[in-house]
Amino acid sequence: MSVYGEKIKLTVFGESHGEAIGAVLDGVPSGYKIDMDKVLTQMSRRAPGKDKTATPRLEKDFPNIKSGILNGVTTGAPIACLIENTNTKSSDYSNLMDSPRPGHSDYTAYVKYNGNNDIRGGGHFSGRLTAPIVFAGAVLRQILEQQGIKIAAHISSIADVEDTAFNPVEISDSLIDELNVSRFPLIDKSKEEKMRSAVESARADGDSVGGTIECIVKGVPAGVGGPLFDGIEGAVSKAVFGIPAVKGIEFGSGFSGSKKRASENNDAFEFKDGKVVTKTNNCGGILGGISSGMPIIFKAAVKPTPSVSKEQDTVNLQTGKNAKLSVKGRHDPCIVPRAVAVVEAVAALAIFDLLENR
Amino acid sequence: MSVYGEKIKLTVFGESHGEAIGAVLDGVPSGYKIDMDKVLTQMSRRAPGKDKTATPRLEKDFPNIKSGILNGVTTGAPIACLIENTNTKSSDYSNLMDSPRPGHSDYTAYVKYNGNNDIRGGGHFSGRLTAPIVFAGAVLRQILEQQGIKIAAHISSIADVEDTAFNPVEISDSLIDELNVSRFPLIDKSKEEKMRSAVESARADGDSVGGTIECIVKGVPAGVGGPLFDGIEGAVSKAVFGIPAVKGIEFGSGFSGSKKRASENNDAFEFKDGKVVTKTNNCGGILGGISSGMPIIFKAAVKPTPSVSKEQDTVNLQTGKNAKLSVKGRHDPCIVPRAVAVVEAVAALAIFDLLENR
Amino acid sequence: MSVYGEKIKLTVFGESHGEAIGAVLDGVPSGYKIDMDKVLTQMSRRAPGKDKTATPRLEKDFPNIKSGILNGVTTGAPIACLIENTNTKSSDYSNLMDSPRPGHSDYTAYVKYNGNNDIRGGGHFSGRLTAPIVFAGAVLRQILEQQGIKIAAHISSIADVEDTAFNPVEISDSLIDELNVSRFPLIDKSKEEKMRSAVESARADGDSVGGTIECIVKGVPAGVGGPLFDGIEGAVSKAVFGIPAVKGIEFGSGFSGSKKRASENNDAFEFKDGKVVTKTNNCGGILGGISSGMPIIFKAAVKPTPSVSKEQDTVNLQTGKNAKLSVKGRHDPCIVPRAVAVVEAVAALAIFDLLENR
Amino acid sequence: MSVYGEKIKLTVFGESHGEAIGAVLDGVPSGYKIDMDKVLTQMSRRAPGKDKTATPRLEKDFPNIKSGILNGVTTGAPIACLIENTNTKSSDYSNLMDSPRPGHSDYTAYVKYNGNNDIRGGGHFSGRLTAPIVFAGAVLRQILEQQGIKIAAHISSIADVEDTAFNPVEISDSLIDELNVSRFPLIDKSKEEKMRSAVESARADGDSVGGTIECIVKGVPAGVGGPLFDGIEGAVSKAVFGIPAVKGIEFGSGFSGSKKRASENNDAFEFKDGKVVTKTNNCGGILGGISSGMPIIFKAAVKPTPSVSKEQDTVNLQTGKNAKLSVKGRHDPCIVPRAVAVVEAVAALAIFDLLENR
Repeated sequence: MSVYGEKIKLTVFGESHGEAIGAVLDGVPSGYKIDMDKVLTQMSRRAPGKDKTATPRLEKDFPNIKSGILNGVTTGAPIACLIENTNTKSSDYSNLMDSPRPGHSDYTAYVKYNGNNDIRGGGHFSGRLTAPIVFAGAVLRQILEQQGIKIAAHISSIADVEDTAFNPVEISDSLIDELNVSRFPLIDKSKEEKMRSAVESARADGDSVGGTIECIVKGVPAGVGGPLFDGIEGAVSKAVFGIPAVKGIEFGSGFSGSKKRASENNDAFEFKDGKVVTKTNNCGGILGGISSGMPIIFKAAVKPTPSVSKEQDTVNLQTGKNAKLSVKGRHDPCIVPRAVAVVEAVAALAIFDLLENR
Repeated sequence: MSVYGEKIKLTVFGESHGEAIGAVLDGVPSGYKIDMDKVLTQMSRRAPGKDKTATPRLEKDFPNIKSGILNGVTTGAPIACLIENTNTKSSDYSNLMDSPRPGHSDYTAYVKYNGNNDIRGGGHFSGRLTAPIVFAGAVLRQILEQQGIKIAAHISSIADVEDTAFNPVEISDSLIDELNVSRFPLIDKSKEEKMRSAVESARADGDSVGGTIECIVKGVPAGVGGPLFDGIEGAVSKAVFGIPAVKGIEFGSGFSGSKKRASENNDAFEFKDGKVVTKTNNCGGILGGISSGMPIIFKAAVKPTPSVSKEQDTVNLQTGKNAKLSVKGRHDPCIVPRAVAVVEAVAALAIFDLLENR
Repeated sequence: MSVYGEKIKLTVFGESHGEAIGAVLDGVPSGYKIDMDKVLTQMSRRAPGKDKTATPRLEKDFPNIKSGILNGVTTGAPIACLIENTNTKSSDYSNLMDSPRPGHSDYTAYVKYNGNNDIRGGGHFSGRLTAPIVFAGAVLRQILEQQGIKIAAHISSIADVEDTAFNPVEISDSLIDELNVSRFPLIDKSKEEKMRSAVESARADGDSVGGTIECIVKGVPAGVGGPLFDGIEGAVSKAVFGIPAVKGIEFGSGFSGSKKRASENNDAFEFKDGKVVTKTNNCGGILGGISSGMPIIFKAAVKPTPSVSKEQDTVNLQTGKNAKLSVKGRHDPCIVPRAVAVVEAVAALAIFDLLENR
Repeated sequence: MSVYGEKIKLTVFGESHGEAIGAVLDGVPSGYKIDMDKVLTQMSRRAPGKDKTATPRLEKDFPNIKSGILNGVTTGAPIACLIENTNTKSSDYSNLMDSPRPGHSDYTAYVKYNGNNDIRGGGHFSGRLTAPIVFAGAVLRQILEQQGIKIAAHISSIADVEDTAFNPVEISDSLIDELNVSRFPLIDKSKEEKMRSAVESARADGDSVGGTIECIVKGVPAGVGGPLFDGIEGAVSKAVFGIPAVKGIEFGSGFSGSKKRASENNDAFEFKDGKVVTKTNNCGGILGGISSGMPIIFKAAVKPTPSVSKEQDTVNLQTGKNAKLSVKGRHDPCIVPRAVAVVEAVAALAIFDLLENR
């Protein structure tokens, strides 16, 4: 199912080179004002062709709202949004029917759908399907903001170049606001040049690079989430792994925390301004699957986008013989900057659902 | 909800120091023979007090099956299993009502349940609740095995001592069988001594250590899973984060893959014995959320168990003042060896659900 | 949630006088040929303005398929369908903001959505929302037919004029085929005139009449469904009550069976052509929530459409005073004939989901 | 799945002649006091052997609470309840393995589970499984009552003897309180004798009779429920059809309303004590799937319990030949009086879930 959520339900539809893609977001409460400019800002951060790291394709990713918002206010009915596919060059993909691209879903989708899936541009598996996800997230985070909850993410690393991490106990609103509109969001901007070099170097080689994205959700009150399979980690990870190319996630100190002793990794409690806080935040704002009131922090690993022009080994599913493949066409040497807005969107989705599901 | 699954549903109930804990597993097909000895072997691997790294508590974790299995064969009705709590010393936990233990769910559960939750032994948040999960997994993996699907995991690291990783493209059945019955499962057994030293050293300091667990599922046919929110990664991660203490997960090359170039990270296809395989398996057996037919591989990060006897800073929720806490009582200096069986169990749960949900 | 289903998920969106309505149908298996002419036939049966019993509105209810069907074959991706709203005269509804229409959702929706819902034409509560449901049903029943499963319904009664009931044990394919394309489907066609008289008489009085619809699903193999909350009755009734105006449902002998003795109501088994059948079918093809292999039979009660031009008592929500209301505009004196195709569609939806969910 | 609910989840397990039956009720908020005496009163109303219309079996249907309630107060963890099966005489059922009882689930369950299901006493399909459902309902209705919501039902008819219906706009608390503790709940008690005569007459003939149960939920605020598949009718009907033997349901004027004109069937609004009410309540308190604030009213049809001692035609599944069957053993000539408490319980379940799901 291309569906996420319990209390809200996001249904994503469309194929990369079909007529349109889109989303239906059901369960959004009525009466919330939605600023379309803010929605477009987020969609533009994800859209291709806006930054040097991205593909030269130009897509008019305009979300046509068909229902659920009247005069800029949510009606309570499902919000349906349609995004036309206007710039589709299908001829590029003809040979993929036979020879699946390594690292892509071509082969596994071929098996699952007996070859009936629309393979052009990756079909329903295309990164393009993240556009309606960003739309949905952009709507939901506006409602979250009206409840004092803010979401921000930055490029934590590209290739082996790392940005500074968020301060896990104190993240300023000004930093959040700045990151929220950036196309290349970094905490330490001095890292931008090195990161861009890594991307350019890969591009020059007909190759691509991956990276990581760190995301925080600030303002979630203590007590959201639940034990066992109802924990925040499970809900957020299910949403984040909904993004093609994500292959790992960790909360708080995560993998590095597994090397620590408890005396280092435990977060001591203290009263601060009459409120219970933790002095550190190695738990990423989550204890027992439930929010502690501190920022929720997670990091996602994004694999290098598999489309490369270098020749690769593959198979020919028609002839049953091994084959060689050179993927022509347009592709990003690094999707990490564009994926930041998508990570924020699915974080909004997961947290909104958890909050409504209390 | 303490519920997992779409096609099968696992409901886990109980509180650490209540009368009993247990599970109901609904949706299991009828007609499968279940070997109770194999179930008990898995439960015993998780049970405390069986290994030097574990707590000295002794629990009779015997699963009383109340329905769903008749004469050793599944009836198709929900399988209900009850495990009595026989060795509960509640007096140890009295002061936790006031002073939440750092790293535990005490504070967040207190907020969520307004102090009405059963805090003794962690209540419904206790690691003890993984016993019924192992029961459910032990049932399901027997059915999976009858379909040619095997699951195995090993201690990938404890503190900073690392075991050798699985060969991602070829895992022998003999290794799987060996790991499946081990209480301290390692691929490179020479690492056991170093790992035990790290645990003992922490215990001597009244502290604890964490680690990582690598798990594989072998024999899943290509074509299982789905795009976007229906991917294997999302389903498995939701199950794995259902285990208390897990704070990270990665599939295949995961976080290290995010530092690679696509030309290194992509897995080339080839025909082998007339079957499509990949030469490497950096994708962890999953492309576009769908199985490739290669082993599914993931690694989970387990935080150091937060119960330590060292004095820690906390708050007193009754007085509203900062406080000191020394956690007395019985606790594991390292839960990683016991958690291996739990990781395997939730892997069985997730893969079984995905297979049934095709 | 405007969502139905476990294994397939139908999401319905749109508001009567918004830009468009539509549906996303997720979980449809790949590789099925869909004949659009058959889809249009079913949508036309539901569409208004085609029969004298219906409203004079003309709507171009053409389903624009945006994804999930490529070259007439299902791709396995969600099937998205958009239906433009072209003939919307909003001015008719302005006073309803203040004075809710008796029998409609105006008041209850106003309370639920705090007045933010789109009230024009009933908004998301409009009978018009059944158009995308018929679309989804028309797709699914084609796949069901390829599995030997046929669905048919007829007008069982209008006002107090009753049609003959289906023979519960033997329904010919020719009768099914005939009913499937009829705009006024009856088993005993001699009842048409009397029924139309009842409708015309109500129309002349500015009033409307209700009726009942009997539906059968033939060819469902024995063994589909499940016990307790997983029964066929529960699944079908949830789907059928998704149709605005349905207020009752009964399976097999239903309410009249509650007056019988078991010796009359029980359906004796016998072998017929080597197959187990029942001599009668008072259980409506369902025992213990599971199909018996006999036709599944249910009857739905449709209330008289509440839009009448007669003056009615209501309240003015703005002034807080009692008020009078005369509903002007276009409305059906009887929606039962058009609702037949909708009942068939939701039957297809429910049965398809149950079959896939085995 | 033997699971009901979205926001709360009730899982029912057990087989009639297994070791125990029970329920897990997840999602119940913490901090509610539960009076066990009130729970036992409801369970006793359902239990067999308490009334002349019932089976002479004696069952100790005591609900052993294993978790989720501590010192009489809900903890927020899943509430698990176990009911031992103490009085099981399995020998009665041996020949049913071969010859399915007409009107029972024997044949359909045999097909679904390939003969692996526990057939003794109906196994998981037994009416006995309603005991844990009544337990769950008895817990939930206590919480509902603390929110001002009361539930009551009465025997609306047995065979062809009818009780007076509820006044649909005004139901006194004293009537509710009286019905809530009655074993033979009637509005017009003068009907009891006639009803008992009909039951006794059937019993004397080795036969059984069915009936109808009318249920109301008073105090549900306006605005609960939702459009299309999210309506109250769908949720309640799914719960009510979870009761074995229910074959029909109608809301408000239901089937009889389908014979009326809108001018008769519509419920006019008016202000009463400053509140919007309807003068009549033909809609059963539900418009557009959403509560109107008036009592929610529905009626369920219960088929005559299929166990009769009269000889019946059936098949022998082993020999493949037609056969005769006389069902020996203990059975109720009428389950309607006992089913009243079950209908109330599932009404509590559905309404509670809808309220929490707002």
